[in-house]
Amino acid sequence: MNYKKENDVSYALGAFVVFEALNSKPNFIRKIYTHKEMKNSEEIAKIYKLAKKHNVQITEGSKLIERISGKENVYIMAEFNKYYNKIEAGNQIVLHNPSDMGNVGTILRTALGFGIKNVVFIKPCVDVFNPKVIRASMGALFSLNVVIYENFEDYLCENRNIIKYFFMLDGKNTLQKINFTNKDKALIFGNEASGLPKDFKSYGQTVFIQHSNKIDSLNLSIAVGIAVYQMTKQGL
Amino acid sequence: MNYKKENDVSYALGAFVVFEALNSKPNFIRKIYTHKEMKNSEEIAKIYKLAKKHNVQITEGSKLIERISGKENVYIMAEFNKYYNKIEAGNQIVLHNPSDMGNVGTILRTALGFGIKNVVFIKPCVDVFNPKVIRASMGALFSLNVVIYENFEDYLCENRNIIKYFFMLDGKNTLQKINFTNKDKALIFGNEASGLPKDFKSYGQTVFIQHSNKIDSLNLSIAVGIAVYQMTKQGL
Repeated sequence: MNYKKENDVSYALGAFVVFEALNSKPNFIRKIYTHKEMKNSEEIAKIYKLAKKHNVQITEGSKLIERISGKENVYIMAEFNKYYNKIEAGNQIVLHNPSDMGNVGTILRTALGFGIKNVVFIKPCVDVFNPKVIRASMGALFSLNVVIYENFEDYLCENRNIIKYFFMLDGKNTLQKINFTNKDKALIFGNEASGLPKDFKSYGQTVFIQHSNKIDSLNLSIAVGIAVYQMTKQGL
Repeated sequence: MNYKKENDVSYALGAFVVFEALNSKPNFIRKIYTHKEMKNSEEIAKIYKLAKKHNVQITEGSKLIERISGKENVYIMAEFNKYYNKIEAGNQIVLHNPSDMGNVGTILRTALGFGIKNVVFIKPCVDVFNPKVIRASMGALFSLNVVIYENFEDYLCENRNIIKYFFMLDGKNTLQKINFTNKDKALIFGNEASGLPKDFKSYGQTVFIQHSNKIDSLNLSIAVGIAVYQMTKQGL
C-alpha cells in the first residue's frame, strides 16, 4: 500500500465506504477515482448522484487505485483530507494504545451501531486514518467523532467530569452488576496484549467481563462489543 | 503460505499456539519445528518439557517455518494431523457459511472464553484448520469440539432436539428479552454478508440484536460475542 501515515490525505476504498464518506463528510472529499474495470450498479449510481450534488469530481484512476489498495478488488476510491474532531457531549469509547487495525475498524462500526458518538484514541496507537482501518469500519469512521490524544494525561485534563469505567482483568465489579450512570460515560479499554496500566484504577470504577480461565482475555473488539451492548441495554 | 486445505496436516504457529496444541491435543502432534533465530524463554521451556512428556520430537526447521508462516515472525511451529470431533452434550455455536478467517478465529476464542463446548460449521465455509484461523483463535480450536457439516439438512438430522435460536436482522424477539432455555441450546448465525436463509425461521426462535439504523449489521464475531455473553449471564 502506498498510503503514508504522514500524508494529509487518506482513501476510502470500495463503493460502500466511498458512499459513507460522501454522505457524512462531503466537504473533505478531494476527488473520486474509478477503475477502468468498474461495473455500473445501483451503488455506483448513488455515488455519482451524491458527487454531483456536492460538486466532487470523478475521474479515471486505475493505477492509483491499484497502488493504494494493493491486491484487493477495489473499483472506486475517494481521496479525502484528514480532519480533526472534538469530543461532543455523549458517551465515549476510549482505546488506550490499540495496535490492531482490524480491531479498531470493528470497534468503530460497533460504536456507530450502538449510538456511541465519541471514539477516543490515546497514543501510541494505530493510524486511525489508514485505509485498512476505514475499510474494516465499513465507513463508520466518517459518522463518528474520532479524537486522538498524545497521552492519557491530556485526555484526563479535557475530560475531568465524565464518569469513567476502566475495563481490566482484575476489575472490581463484573460487568453485569454495574448500574451505569445516566450521565455521560467513558468506557476505557487497554492494549490487546498488555491491557490498561494498573495505576489507572484511581481514576474511576474498574470492570471485569467474566470469562472462563481457559483463555487469557477476550479479544479487544469483543470486549468492547459486550460492554457497549450491556450499557445501551439499560437505555443509557 | 504453503499450507493446503486438502492436506491431512496443518500447523500451529508461535509459542502460545504450539503450547495450546501440545497441551490439549498431544496425540495429534507429529513434530515441532524451531527456527534458528528462536530465543529461549519461559514459554519455550514449557513447550520442551511438555514435548518430552508426550514424546514429541523437536527439530530445526527454519525454512519450513518461513514457507508456512509467510512474512510473520514465527520461531516455533507444531505440525499436527487434522482430527474430527463429534458434538458433545452442551451448548453450541453454529456458523452457517462463515467466510472470514479472522472472524472464525475470534469466535472460537470467544466460545472457549464463555464455556461453549461445540462450534459447528455448515459448508461452504472457511477452512477451519487453516493456520491463520488457528492463530486468530489463539489455539482455542484445540480445546473445543469443532464439527463440520456438508449442509444444514445434515446438521438438522443429527441435532433435532436441541433448542435453536436463529440470529437474524428481522428476528422476532430482541436478544435482551429472550429467556434462554436451561436445556442444551444452539445459537445459529449466518454468513457475514448475506445472513441466514429466510426459510430457517421455521426451525426455531428468531432473535435480533438491536442496533441503530446507521449500520447494516454488526460484525459477525461481535454479534456472537454479545449473544454468548447474554446467554451465559443467565447462568445457562
